[in-house]
Amino acid sequence: MIIGVVIIKINFKHDVNGQKLVIAVVQDYETSQVLMVAYMNKEALTKTLETGVAHYWSTSRNKLWLKGESSGNTQKVKEIFTDCDMDAVVLKVEQTGAACHEGYYSCFFREFDVEKINENKTDLEDLNENDLKIIAERLFNPEDVYGDK
Amino acid sequence: MIIGVVIIKINFKHDVNGQKLVIAVVQDYETSQVLMVAYMNKEALTKTLETGVAHYWSTSRNKLWLKGESSGNTQKVKEIFTDCDMDAVVLKVEQTGAACHEGYYSCFFREFDVEKINENKTDLEDLNENDLKIIAERLFNPEDVYGDK
Repeated sequence: MIIGVVIIKINFKHDVNGQKLVIAVVQDYETSQVLMVAYMNKEALTKTLETGVAHYWSTSRNKLWLKGESSGNTQKVKEIFTDCDMDAVVLKVEQTGAACHEGYYSCFFREFDVEKINENKTDLEDLNENDLKIIAERLFNPEDVYGDK
Repeated sequence: MIIGVVIIKINFKHDVNGQKLVIAVVQDYETSQVLMVAYMNKEALTKTLETGVAHYWSTSRNKLWLKGESSGNTQKVKEIFTDCDMDAVVLKVEQTGAACHEGYYSCFFREFDVEKINENKTDLEDLNENDLKIIAERLFNPEDVYGDK
């Protein structure tokens, strides 16, 4: 009798510049607020599991990225989940400082003013700043942390 | 004097089969549990804003996808946010039934057993079913909803 073991494969199916990636959604461990969305290649996810600190694949810099390596705003990973088709992960983290390079705790600091956008039938590639409401306060000034670029 | 209005452009920068997309993260409005991750093209996001019901771009079927069109498990959108570089959105929704086509409320029903994976230095493309713990109960049998495919 053969007893089968189901092999499960994390599906690094998202292709950006030839890198094979999963989407990573990052949530605050306590509040479940979504802090950011990023990509991980196999090395980044492996390093995240091994070290307990979030690593991503930077698609803009084309390199492995230890979150917080320049800002100090690291993410201690408490739990990791994957979805039905295993091409995305959710990380629940303890965030040091702020997740967003613009100085906000979460990158999702803008809310759509749905009523206004619908009223004006505004094109989503031609919004003005009043169509999106800033819903959070900055925790730091980006220039203080990353320098004046 | 010219008073400037900052133009903001949702950045449909993710390319899958020639479609320009944003990543959409879907959260339960009450609990903030992440239910699923999907893509939206401009039409899907526009329709979501107009109708208040979540629409996505199906990258497997290459078509606009009203979530719940076959299962009835629609998502009423309560709030929508976008991130710093405006290439991702977070939807807070009231989910009818279950979000996952496998019958779970959330697609993220598997948790990594980090300790075990690290102990065995298991390759992420060669996990076995015991490396991922099922953390939820099925709400429905997929065959009952989608038919026996």
